[in-house]
Amino acid sequence: MRMRRKKHGAERIAACSDLLIEHPELLMGDPCAPFSEKKPLALEIGCGKGAFACGTAAAIPEVNMIAMERVADVACLALEKASACADTRPDNLRFIIGNAENLPEWLPAHCLDTIYLNFSDPWPKSGYKKRRLTHRGFLEKYRELLVPGGMLKFKTDNHDLFFFSLEEFEACGLEIIWKTEDLHASELAASNVMTEYEANFSSKGMPIYSAHVRFPA
Amino acid sequence: MRMRRKKHGAERIAACSDLLIEHPELLMGDPCAPFSEKKPLALEIGCGKGAFACGTAAAIPEVNMIAMERVADVACLALEKASACADTRPDNLRFIIGNAENLPEWLPAHCLDTIYLNFSDPWPKSGYKKRRLTHRGFLEKYRELLVPGGMLKFKTDNHDLFFFSLEEFEACGLEIIWKTEDLHASELAASNVMTEYEANFSSKGMPIYSAHVRFPA
Repeated sequence: MRMRRKKHGAERIAACSDLLIEHPELLMGDPCAPFSEKKPLALEIGCGKGAFACGTAAAIPEVNMIAMERVADVACLALEKASACADTRPDNLRFIIGNAENLPEWLPAHCLDTIYLNFSDPWPKSGYKKRRLTHRGFLEKYRELLVPGGMLKFKTDNHDLFFFSLEEFEACGLEIIWKTEDLHASELAASNVMTEYEANFSSKGMPIYSAHVRFPA
Repeated sequence: MRMRRKKHGAERIAACSDLLIEHPELLMGDPCAPFSEKKPLALEIGCGKGAFACGTAAAIPEVNMIAMERVADVACLALEKASACADTRPDNLRFIIGNAENLPEWLPAHCLDTIYLNFSDPWPKSGYKKRRLTHRGFLEKYRELLVPGGMLKFKTDNHDLFFFSLEEFEACGLEIIWKTEDLHASELAASNVMTEYEANFSSKGMPIYSAHVRFPA
C-alpha cells in the first residue's frame, strides 16, 4: 500500500532527518543508538503533530523518547515542530514513520520503560477491533517490548474505546494502577502534557479518559 | 506497509476467489470484465462485512456492483457473506481488497454511475482530514471516475464528518440533491439497505446522516 506524501513532503522530512530514525530495524542492536546518551526509553505510538512528544521529552530529559506516526504527512509536521525548537532542539527525542505492527521487528525485547497511547483511532466498528491499539493482540506485543513492570499510559476522548481498553487490560491480567473519566479534573491534570487534538477537544468541554496500566514484573 | 491477515485468511479468501477481483488493474481495459453482463457500474468504497453490497446487489440486479475494502480480514467476511447466498450467488457483485487512493490506477475515467460511501472512518483529527473519503482530494478522484451527472451516496453516524462533507461538496461545486439528519425517519427509510454497523448503531436510537450528491453533467 502506497503512502501519499504532502507536496514537497520528502524534502520537508529530509530537512529534519537528524530527528528521524530512517532505518528502525537498526534499533534491534541498540535502541538508544540514535540518542546522544543511554537513558530509559519511552515510546509514543501515534504521535500525530508531535505536541505531546515534544512536551514530554522536554519535561523528562532523563528519558529518551521515540515517537512513532504512521501517516507521513502528519509525521512531517511533528518533525518540523521538534526541529523548530532551535535553542533546545531535543537530543532525547527521535521519530519513526511507521506502523505499530512492525515494532517487534524493530525493537529488541524488554527495552521500553513506558508506552504512551494518546487519542488512538477508536476503530468503532467491531470488524476492525483488532486494529485498536489497546486490543489484546497489541497488548501482547507491548508485553514483549516493555521491561517487566513497564507502564502503558493511555488517554482518549472516546468513551467506547476507553471501556473496551479497560476490558482488554483485565483480560490480559494487567494491573490498572490509575484511571479517570475526567483527566483534566484529576490529580494528574497539572502534569498532563496535552496533544493538539486534546487541547481542541477539551476546550469544547468534553472529558478526557485516561488509564495507567502496569505489566507484570 | 504490510497487512496482517486472519489465521487461514488467505485460504478463506481463496475459497471465494470467484467473487474477488484479484488484479484490479485489469479493470482499466473493461471494468465490467469480471461480470457476466455489461451493466451500469456502481462502487462501494469501504464495504466492511458486506451487508450493504450484498443487499444492494440483490435489490438492483440491473447494476454491476464493485465493493472495495482495504482491511483484508474484513473483506474476507464480506466475501464469505456474498458466497453464502448459495442459491442466489450474486453475478452482479465483485470485490476488491485495496485502497481508495489507488482507484485511478484501476478504473478508467467516467465508468461509474454511482459511488457509495457508508460509515467511512471519520478521521476526527484535523491533521488527517485528507484521509476522509469526502475530502475534496477524493471528490476530485470521484469526478474522474463517475460519468457526467454521476451520483455519490453517503451515510454516516458521525456528526462532524457529515457537516465537513457538506462543506466539501459545496466547495467542489457539487449539487446536494438530498440530505437528512435522520435517514431512518426519512422518505428513503423503506428503501435503505443497512450496513452491519448501521443496524447496531441505529438500534441504540442514534440518528444516521445521509446525503446524495450529483456531479456536474
